[in-house]
Amino acid sequence: MTKAAPKTPRKRGYRMSRAAPPGSVPGTLVSHPDAVAPKIDVIRYGPDQVDEVPAAPADELRAGVGTQPVTWVNVSGLGDLDLLRSFGKAFGLHRLSLADVVNVHQRPKAEIYEGYLFIVTRMPRGGSGTETEQITMVLGENFVLTFQERAGDCFEPVRKRLRRKRGRIRDAGADYLAYALLDAVIDGFYPVLEACGERLATLEDEIIASPSQGAITDVHELKHDLLMLRRAIWPQREMINSLLRDEGELISENTRIYLRDCYDHAVQLMDIVETYREIASALVDVYLSSVSARLNEIMKVLTIIATIFIPLGFVASLYGMNFDPKASPWNMPELGWRYGYLFSLALMVVIAGGLLYYFRRRGWLGGNRERQRARRRRRRSA
Amino acid sequence: MTKAAPKTPRKRGYRMSRAAPPGSVPGTLVSHPDAVAPKIDVIRYGPDQVDEVPAAPADELRAGVGTQPVTWVNVSGLGDLDLLRSFGKAFGLHRLSLADVVNVHQRPKAEIYEGYLFIVTRMPRGGSGTETEQITMVLGENFVLTFQERAGDCFEPVRKRLRRKRGRIRDAGADYLAYALLDAVIDGFYPVLEACGERLATLEDEIIASPSQGAITDVHELKHDLLMLRRAIWPQREMINSLLRDEGELISENTRIYLRDCYDHAVQLMDIVETYREIASALVDVYLSSVSARLNEIMKVLTIIATIFIPLGFVASLYGMNFDPKASPWNMPELGWRYGYLFSLALMVVIAGGLLYYFRRRGWLGGNRERQRARRRRRRSA
Amino acid sequence: MTKAAPKTPRKRGYRMSRAAPPGSVPGTLVSHPDAVAPKIDVIRYGPDQVDEVPAAPADELRAGVGTQPVTWVNVSGLGDLDLLRSFGKAFGLHRLSLADVVNVHQRPKAEIYEGYLFIVTRMPRGGSGTETEQITMVLGENFVLTFQERAGDCFEPVRKRLRRKRGRIRDAGADYLAYALLDAVIDGFYPVLEACGERLATLEDEIIASPSQGAITDVHELKHDLLMLRRAIWPQREMINSLLRDEGELISENTRIYLRDCYDHAVQLMDIVETYREIASALVDVYLSSVSARLNEIMKVLTIIATIFIPLGFVASLYGMNFDPKASPWNMPELGWRYGYLFSLALMVVIAGGLLYYFRRRGWLGGNRERQRARRRRRRSA
Amino acid sequence: MTKAAPKTPRKRGYRMSRAAPPGSVPGTLVSHPDAVAPKIDVIRYGPDQVDEVPAAPADELRAGVGTQPVTWVNVSGLGDLDLLRSFGKAFGLHRLSLADVVNVHQRPKAEIYEGYLFIVTRMPRGGSGTETEQITMVLGENFVLTFQERAGDCFEPVRKRLRRKRGRIRDAGADYLAYALLDAVIDGFYPVLEACGERLATLEDEIIASPSQGAITDVHELKHDLLMLRRAIWPQREMINSLLRDEGELISENTRIYLRDCYDHAVQLMDIVETYREIASALVDVYLSSVSARLNEIMKVLTIIATIFIPLGFVASLYGMNFDPKASPWNMPELGWRYGYLFSLALMVVIAGGLLYYFRRRGWLGGNRERQRARRRRRRSA
Amino acid sequence: MTKAAPKTPRKRGYRMSRAAPPGSVPGTLVSHPDAVAPKIDVIRYGPDQVDEVPAAPADELRAGVGTQPVTWVNVSGLGDLDLLRSFGKAFGLHRLSLADVVNVHQRPKAEIYEGYLFIVTRMPRGGSGTETEQITMVLGENFVLTFQERAGDCFEPVRKRLRRKRGRIRDAGADYLAYALLDAVIDGFYPVLEACGERLATLEDEIIASPSQGAITDVHELKHDLLMLRRAIWPQREMINSLLRDEGELISENTRIYLRDCYDHAVQLMDIVETYREIASALVDVYLSSVSARLNEIMKVLTIIATIFIPLGFVASLYGMNFDPKASPWNMPELGWRYGYLFSLALMVVIAGGLLYYFRRRGWLGGNRERQRARRRRRRSA
Repeated sequence: MTKAAPKTPRKRGYRMSRAAPPGSVPGTLVSHPDAVAPKIDVIRYGPDQVDEVPAAPADELRAGVGTQPVTWVNVSGLGDLDLLRSFGKAFGLHRLSLADVVNVHQRPKAEIYEGYLFIVTRMPRGGSGTETEQITMVLGENFVLTFQERAGDCFEPVRKRLRRKRGRIRDAGADYLAYALLDAVIDGFYPVLEACGERLATLEDEIIASPSQGAITDVHELKHDLLMLRRAIWPQREMINSLLRDEGELISENTRIYLRDCYDHAVQLMDIVETYREIASALVDVYLSSVSARLNEIMKVLTIIATIFIPLGFVASLYGMNFDPKASPWNMPELGWRYGYLFSLALMVVIAGGLLYYFRRRGWLGGNRERQRARRRRRRSA
Repeated sequence: MTKAAPKTPRKRGYRMSRAAPPGSVPGTLVSHPDAVAPKIDVIRYGPDQVDEVPAAPADELRAGVGTQPVTWVNVSGLGDLDLLRSFGKAFGLHRLSLADVVNVHQRPKAEIYEGYLFIVTRMPRGGSGTETEQITMVLGENFVLTFQERAGDCFEPVRKRLRRKRGRIRDAGADYLAYALLDAVIDGFYPVLEACGERLATLEDEIIASPSQGAITDVHELKHDLLMLRRAIWPQREMINSLLRDEGELISENTRIYLRDCYDHAVQLMDIVETYREIASALVDVYLSSVSARLNEIMKVLTIIATIFIPLGFVASLYGMNFDPKASPWNMPELGWRYGYLFSLALMVVIAGGLLYYFRRRGWLGGNRERQRARRRRRRSA
Repeated sequence: MTKAAPKTPRKRGYRMSRAAPPGSVPGTLVSHPDAVAPKIDVIRYGPDQVDEVPAAPADELRAGVGTQPVTWVNVSGLGDLDLLRSFGKAFGLHRLSLADVVNVHQRPKAEIYEGYLFIVTRMPRGGSGTETEQITMVLGENFVLTFQERAGDCFEPVRKRLRRKRGRIRDAGADYLAYALLDAVIDGFYPVLEACGERLATLEDEIIASPSQGAITDVHELKHDLLMLRRAIWPQREMINSLLRDEGELISENTRIYLRDCYDHAVQLMDIVETYREIASALVDVYLSSVSARLNEIMKVLTIIATIFIPLGFVASLYGMNFDPKASPWNMPELGWRYGYLFSLALMVVIAGGLLYYFRRRGWLGGNRERQRARRRRRRSA
Repeated sequence: MTKAAPKTPRKRGYRMSRAAPPGSVPGTLVSHPDAVAPKIDVIRYGPDQVDEVPAAPADELRAGVGTQPVTWVNVSGLGDLDLLRSFGKAFGLHRLSLADVVNVHQRPKAEIYEGYLFIVTRMPRGGSGTETEQITMVLGENFVLTFQERAGDCFEPVRKRLRRKRGRIRDAGADYLAYALLDAVIDGFYPVLEACGERLATLEDEIIASPSQGAITDVHELKHDLLMLRRAIWPQREMINSLLRDEGELISENTRIYLRDCYDHAVQLMDIVETYREIASALVDVYLSSVSARLNEIMKVLTIIATIFIPLGFVASLYGMNFDPKASPWNMPELGWRYGYLFSLALMVVIAGGLLYYFRRRGWLGGNRERQRARRRRRRSA
Repeated sequence: MTKAAPKTPRKRGYRMSRAAPPGSVPGTLVSHPDAVAPKIDVIRYGPDQVDEVPAAPADELRAGVGTQPVTWVNVSGLGDLDLLRSFGKAFGLHRLSLADVVNVHQRPKAEIYEGYLFIVTRMPRGGSGTETEQITMVLGENFVLTFQERAGDCFEPVRKRLRRKRGRIRDAGADYLAYALLDAVIDGFYPVLEACGERLATLEDEIIASPSQGAITDVHELKHDLLMLRRAIWPQREMINSLLRDEGELISENTRIYLRDCYDHAVQLMDIVETYREIASALVDVYLSSVSARLNEIMKVLTIIATIFIPLGFVASLYGMNFDPKASPWNMPELGWRYGYLFSLALMVVIAGGLLYYFRRRGWLGGNRERQRARRRRRRSA
């Protein structure tokens, strides 16, 4: 029943990166229409202490950098351009960096600017959906700025580790914090891919058991989602790789070992995405061949019934003709035979029997089951 | 209804690059038949001043270069070869450069000549179509020449920024102007791709809801357009990359940072084009499987009706035979039975019931709806 | 009508490169069976003079090299091995070079030998066919040798430029002549590709308008031709690139700029070939979906007609049964009713109407046209 | 019979690498839920002696390293995190290495840490299944640690060679032992691929002989398994290559020659996997074309029977009409003809004969067998 | 007739490289079960002399190296492991080299060992089959060892050139001999590919003329064979390339020029294989679309016949009903009309005519031929 197809087509959003109208000044800040009011969280920490500082103007925050070994300023919500400009000024950000913060459909990348490293990454938006949200990070010598599209992120475990001093995070520098955040982002893709794997396994079983049109639409949607994930993950892999090979001084040798681990995870995510995509593509073949097989089966039934009864019906019609036996002895003398009726019935039985025999020899009747059995036997012995 | 297909086949123009006949002198200027008369705009500017100078012969324009820090000469329309030759002479252009200006189906590229950088790029022609127009740029030490196929371009915002002194454009050199123009060109592809995204989303919904032959033709056209866009964008990416890596002195370190941003946009455009192409290809699978499913459904209905009524019709024909019961007691005694007619009707009901039962067990009847429900249930629980 | 398919299968020639039997001495000269008798043209020229010298033995020709700045010896026809050997000896060619001259199915390549550059290239044979012919060039310090399979080439414009002193060809050295010849060869592919583009556009329109089996055979042939063109052009691109990057002294810096232009053209040719191949591949999908759609339409008509008339026919057969109403009141009393006939007709109308209603609700009737209209409306608004 | 499809869908496990919850401290040890209690085997050996030492605490084992030229500690089962931590401490392993030991769905890789080389590899789990199990190796100067998911491995032959002093293993260092173990792992894939080859050959024969829906499901499963094998083998190839090119001192020049051999095997495995995948993909085409051919055959039979008997039936029905010949001489005078019946029979024969002739000319009847014969003749002569 | 499919499935041999059981000592010599007893041929030669020396123990042969400038020892048959070991010892071969000699399913490769170059190559087994046989070569300073699986090779022409002193082979060193043998191996693939080209052309013509299920099986087999050839040729190309770039002293500059020629041939072979594979893949599309077109044609005939005669049959049945005109004037008064019969016939003609008109307008009747003609006209004018 194709009626099951959605009546109200859901508009898929193929979103673009450029918020500013074409040709505007490079570095123009244009707020995304959905941008929300910012919320600022500041954490300053060192081996011995963690201070969660209240929000303050950007230049005060900048001035406070250095009171502890590392300062982490997190801005959730990009709706206040003046505030972002004040951050840009206080922390000496290039106008292009600032534009990239606001322009939320960027490709993940890492760029070196004078005095800081600028990282764009994408984090799954949570739930098992495949939507992602842009996170930009600015890694300075002793501070990390992060900008998120909205409140709610995958950094909570990092905050907990900071507060409870678990692992080496409190002892390490800002570069390790940046790594920890990146790692949390990459880790966030695992549940998303797990959900995709579940959908794939379900579809695989469903299509093999009984192919329905809805399943192929689902496969298409899954492929679409995997394509989106690939677009989000692939450049992250490149980005982390460029951080690894970069000779700058902002990332210590020690943190690089951890980044290598993070890179391994990104590579593995890509591996999984590609594997899923290939399986999903192969499923279409399974579907099509399954549908063809069903059509064949249906056609066989139709053909058998029609082929048997059409000749029988013809014989019956033949003897339903009204030629007048009385007008001439040549006119349907069978009608007056003693065993005429039985003769006609016998004729029909012979025709039907002959056709059934022909179908059987062709392997169209019953053979299927036997062939299946033969297959199973062969497999077992293989 | 295939009648909906176009009666008057629109000839797609697969245009070629070589305007000059094969074997002619390299660097021969041959005007494109559609070339229009040129219109010259000159802007000279520096931090403090912007002069929009009236059109003048090429050597005068050349002489005027240097009166202001940067001179931008824009020629729209390539119909006057003598004028172009005078430009070539005045600005010391290589004969091959000049030929590339006229020959409007070039692949985007950047080439270093003595004393200037020669850039070929392609700009979308405007509207939401995927046609592109060639723009050639000559970047000298303190001037930029641009040649367009016709008036009307995506440079208006740059001109406005020059006039109103927005951004750093007035303070920077000719290289920044060249960047700003390139950036405007690249930005011009975003609306084009957005329109493609819209078409793709519409087709996706349409094919899933009800596949029609027209939709697949549209998908083919979309793929065609995306292929053309790819041919236009891919070499631009390479071209900007070669500018980035080029060690020449015409592009300053500072402008290079902006070019990197421009490169990111080109990469993202390619990303989007490739994603769209993959989705469009996948749509064909969805279409085919959807059509197969419909065929199956149609065949099932035909098979059920035919398979039920053909045997019934046979029974009816049987008792329509004219064997003479009076000639022999063996001839169709049923006709004379008290409940003969009811017996025949009962026979038909039994046959029809048996077949319906068989179809139901096969899952050809009603099962569809139940299976759909089962799918939905499974999905919800998944 | 598959009858339209060719009855006398045209043997496609998948020709091989190795003329000599496997294992023979490397550099063995084996004449191709179709090789024709050679014809020698000699042109010696400098800025001031062009001499078209009569054919002469190879050693005399060699001796004459240097009387003018550049000597161009063109040999058309490879049927005389002794003559070729004499050339090889006179001009100091390696035995492998000489073998490559004769062996006419080579892949284009450029190889440096002591004292000369050896270039194998492929030129379209003329007309709009995709057949190519091998041209080998030997570029020495002040001479160029060219060997062609047969008379008739794409070098006529170059000869004219030499005679009429158009462009800088007379002022430049042998390397520029070699470039000019290569450029003429590359240019020769444009009309061939244009013809392919025409075929593709025609097929595209035809398949969209009304898919026929012949069209898909044509698409296959076009793909085949494009594959052959790709095999001819792709290595030329590599070959020119290797000439560009080669640090030898035979090619001057100035000529290199022209070669870069030639390289651009080769890249563009490849671009076009690849684009055409992708479109041709996509056409197969359009064809298949178009055929599926037609099959669906045909089956729908069959199904509707059969599904309506089979039940009606059954009703008619029913009342054609010969049960004897006189034998029992239970036997077909309808036959004796006053409105029996009208009742049966009404029954049929009700059945047919019910089925038509069912088909309409399923969207099998008339809906097509409405759906088409809906599509167009949606597109316009999109 | 699609009934043969599995009723109880087997959930394919698309397993993920990250055991620890997203965002946890990098290097967190989280035991896999299926992890079993560890079993420790220690072998210390040199040219003259082999000691199989009883299990002991990690620091004692570490202390014992050096009493013989090489010490091999094998831990089977990862269920005891404390034990693993003690190993990590005793042998100076980085916390990330230790995490990788526990986290059993890693991608094979080789990483250099200070003082040791860390290798993750995957070994087929045994039987002919395509499941793999993670093996991690730590190669120190004079020791090798191996960690397996569970008891049972492919190292038995290596142990035998150690005990019986076969080959040069006892004379070589720890690097050679690591090589020997890697080689055993790579070798372990050969029987797995052989089983896949068997399955492929069986499916190939089956699909060509008689395509069934079950076969295509098997092909899909085979492709799935090959994809999994590729995911396991491909990174091993890279990993061994990185060991080969690595300039570290832990692997001697001599062992590198052996590693090259191991690399060759990994390359060959990939070769085989890719070849199998391509053949499996091509099989789907064979299946689909085979199914199409069968459908054609079925439809031909139906069409022939229906097309012949429907017109015949019509003629019979025609003369079954009850127009009253007595009411008018125009009403079915044939019924009263002397040879009316014979005439109607003759009419039917003519119709049937004409249709049969038409089908034959179309090549729908009997032609098949002849065409087959023609094919075979042509092939033989080819 | 699918009966034509082979009843006794031919088991395709997907053979593996590893003869030794997994985990055995690297370098273990395990004789292949089919290995035959070895036959040794020795040729020593220099510019002036060729000695064909009788077979002798390996150490004597080794001692004899140097009596002439070059010694070529050829071993055909690998069935005697002791003999091979003695060769290994006498010529100082690494144990891995020796294992590679015996292990006959290697990937072609070239490896540098101390004092010799070890080359594994694959030679077509002869005939036009695509089976290959492993040849291993050891190139020392003044000797070449070759090991073949069995007697019979493609080296006969080389031997003849040696004996008759044709070409420069007698004057050159062992490296030239190795080149000559490699060249003979590569050349041996040309006839094999020519045979594949023949098969492909035949299949192309056959599928276009009349697609049969057998043809697609043949295409599958051809693809399979081409895949195997690719697996044999591709690594040879790499191997020769590595010889070309290798800086060792065993191969002289002069021989390198010849190797370059050999490399060109390998590249061309790969080119041909890839082209054939693409054409073979495209053939499947042609087949499927051809089959679809045939199905459409069949269905059209069925639909036309059924659609015309089913309504006619219904009309006939209608007037075959037995309602009693005597019981009521409403009961089938047509039966008693003067022109009732003619009226019913006219009704049928009108129905049939209307349907034929409808089909014609739909382009289902006769239009095909006209469309074909239109196509041809268009093509001619194109």
